[in-house]
Amino acid sequence: MVVEFIFVGTELLLGNIVNTNAAYLSEKCAGQGLSCYYQTVVGDNEGRLTGVLQTAMERSDIVILSGGLGPTEDDLTKEVAAKVCGKALYMHEPSRQALERYFLKRGIELTDNNWKQAMIPEGAIVLENPNGTAPGVIIETKKAKVILLPGPPGELCPMFEESVAPYLARLTNTVIFSQTVKICGVGESKAETMVKDLIDAQTNPTLATYAKTGEVHIRVTASADTEENAMKLTAPVVKELKKRFGKAVYTAEEGVTLEMAVTELLKSRNLTVTCAESCTGGLLSGRLINAAGASDVYKAGFVTYSNKAKHKWIGVKKSTLKKYGAVSAETAREMAEGAACAAKADAAVSVTGIAGPDGGTEEKPVGLVYIGCCVKGRVTVKKYQFSGNRAKVRESAVAAALTLLRKCVLDAS
Amino acid sequence: MVVEFIFVGTELLLGNIVNTNAAYLSEKCAGQGLSCYYQTVVGDNEGRLTGVLQTAMERSDIVILSGGLGPTEDDLTKEVAAKVCGKALYMHEPSRQALERYFLKRGIELTDNNWKQAMIPEGAIVLENPNGTAPGVIIETKKAKVILLPGPPGELCPMFEESVAPYLARLTNTVIFSQTVKICGVGESKAETMVKDLIDAQTNPTLATYAKTGEVHIRVTASADTEENAMKLTAPVVKELKKRFGKAVYTAEEGVTLEMAVTELLKSRNLTVTCAESCTGGLLSGRLINAAGASDVYKAGFVTYSNKAKHKWIGVKKSTLKKYGAVSAETAREMAEGAACAAKADAAVSVTGIAGPDGGTEEKPVGLVYIGCCVKGRVTVKKYQFSGNRAKVRESAVAAALTLLRKCVLDAS
Repeated sequence: MVVEFIFVGTELLLGNIVNTNAAYLSEKCAGQGLSCYYQTVVGDNEGRLTGVLQTAMERSDIVILSGGLGPTEDDLTKEVAAKVCGKALYMHEPSRQALERYFLKRGIELTDNNWKQAMIPEGAIVLENPNGTAPGVIIETKKAKVILLPGPPGELCPMFEESVAPYLARLTNTVIFSQTVKICGVGESKAETMVKDLIDAQTNPTLATYAKTGEVHIRVTASADTEENAMKLTAPVVKELKKRFGKAVYTAEEGVTLEMAVTELLKSRNLTVTCAESCTGGLLSGRLINAAGASDVYKAGFVTYSNKAKHKWIGVKKSTLKKYGAVSAETAREMAEGAACAAKADAAVSVTGIAGPDGGTEEKPVGLVYIGCCVKGRVTVKKYQFSGNRAKVRESAVAAALTLLRKCVLDAS
Repeated sequence: MVVEFIFVGTELLLGNIVNTNAAYLSEKCAGQGLSCYYQTVVGDNEGRLTGVLQTAMERSDIVILSGGLGPTEDDLTKEVAAKVCGKALYMHEPSRQALERYFLKRGIELTDNNWKQAMIPEGAIVLENPNGTAPGVIIETKKAKVILLPGPPGELCPMFEESVAPYLARLTNTVIFSQTVKICGVGESKAETMVKDLIDAQTNPTLATYAKTGEVHIRVTASADTEENAMKLTAPVVKELKKRFGKAVYTAEEGVTLEMAVTELLKSRNLTVTCAESCTGGLLSGRLINAAGASDVYKAGFVTYSNKAKHKWIGVKKSTLKKYGAVSAETAREMAEGAACAAKADAAVSVTGIAGPDGGTEEKPVGLVYIGCCVKGRVTVKKYQFSGNRAKVRESAVAAALTLLRKCVLDAS
């Protein structure tokens, strides 16, 4: 079956916002086995929208429109779609009541223009919108199914997950199941080489690799008649990936991030952790504390940006700083040891490097970073050369620090 | 004049990448006074691309295509465009040599399929690509100007700036000049109200407001026959904005961020700064140190996530923590005072709050954050209630902390 997208909104034509709905819907529909050949962006203009919708309904089985369902005069997607499909609009009582409840709950006055959001084309399926005011709509015609969704991603995405995906699954009689194996500390091209045979050999499930900063994600996607059968197809491939990548796999669970995995690992080993940061300046601690519940393992950390601070707070020797410099393996080592000692933590990670754009020399170029990790008194120091601008170097250093901490904790036990 | 975009690439239809080129080109072309009514995404398919291009050339004066200029068999944008425009392709000697140089410089072997990138439609204007292998092309026909650009943003954006923008400026005989006034500590709707009369009254220059976390940016854009004349139009409006928003304007210069402005302010007053962070856990320090040259003002900072750490490192009284709790105005005050004292810094900012998703109570809900700021011994504490998820609350708290620090430093002198 062929799906086509129409994104409605002058703000898209003016470039005021990036169309993230396009990538989201494309990926979701491809995942459900639908083919997509065209996507169009058009403004809130009756004539042009009518033309684009008519063309789409001629050449595709399913047309998904997003945007233009709101209360203002500009919003005319539903009115145009109803007209093109030859359906009259009527006041849909449950949607009217939902609107009332929405405004009452937030204590906002409901102005008259809002009611038009509860007008629904005759015979259409209404999709509830718990995150906004405009419900979604599915109009089924002989030519095509026309699906209208609100534009804000915070409304569109949950509505797609809850209402549209199951509707499409019934249409295509196919269930899609995906599982992602997340890997850290293995480069993208190496990871790709390690799974190339699997990618080439498989058609169901399929494998796709995605490079993230310091990580590679491998998504395994299967389609079948039931979710259970789809899971039966992915399971052996996920098992094989875990075997090939071993300890580098930090999770195969949905929604788990590297900082969450590291926090959980520390918690399971009953270890506390601290950070001593120079060039990352707090970003590593900030990311560790992203994980809700980090307070079980993380108590205190140090941003030691100056040499003085490195000496005063975490006891890096003045002689070390003088002899080897702040960006050196020796300083990274003493930062990790000193931070563990000062914070009375079982583990400590230190980061010191040259994030740029200035400060680089031939010997110590921009992007050079030393990361130290101390776990129960045993210290490991690694040297890295990252590329990219200041922000990218710092982001790469944070990911590498989490990866090294994880490795050292795993090796320690 | 009317411009239209065609984005070519199966990876867009599959949702593997977000189409940032769309927002980039839309904004740039709107800035040059061009109207855009349609944008289309289509795959690397000869028949469908031919149809889409023909339609676009019928209804628009300028058609910009991006993607599909590469060396592989899939890449057929140039071949299709040449055919639709009735132009034969020939080997363009300067482009051939540029290709050779590109590969030689990188020490990569040049495979045969690469030569097709140097094939150019007869009579076309060639746009050099210093950042990649495929040159851009402008084909001028009676119906429309057809502009072909490479897909990777790292190649498309510089090529647009250097070659396409001046070409469009000559076509439209217009130069566009923009200046952005950046404001912190004023809510979006208040800022909009404060400039509504200007927005309504102005057609050249135009004003547009953009909400960022904790900031509002107001862009003033003028068009004229020369850049000098365009600047003459924006200058009085920028002056008026500075007058209306007063100290809330932290910059009207290109590329200056809030952390850069705060760092510069501290430097100009000869003040050093430190941070004591609980719920933001290092992100505030991390953002301050985004500003290259932060080392002049920032020496050391503290991530004091646990109560013990708040007491031990920055001297928050145990009785304060017990009586008022870690998330309280009293604790924020002692954190700021204690951090300034411990780090021997002239100024200190503290953040303590409930980022969620857990830990909220009726009295202290998720999103409640206290920020303390101590400048030369004088402490200010403010209470905030942020909304959104954990990441959003933390991001908002960081922006509010920078804004409060800026305000306290300005007030102190």
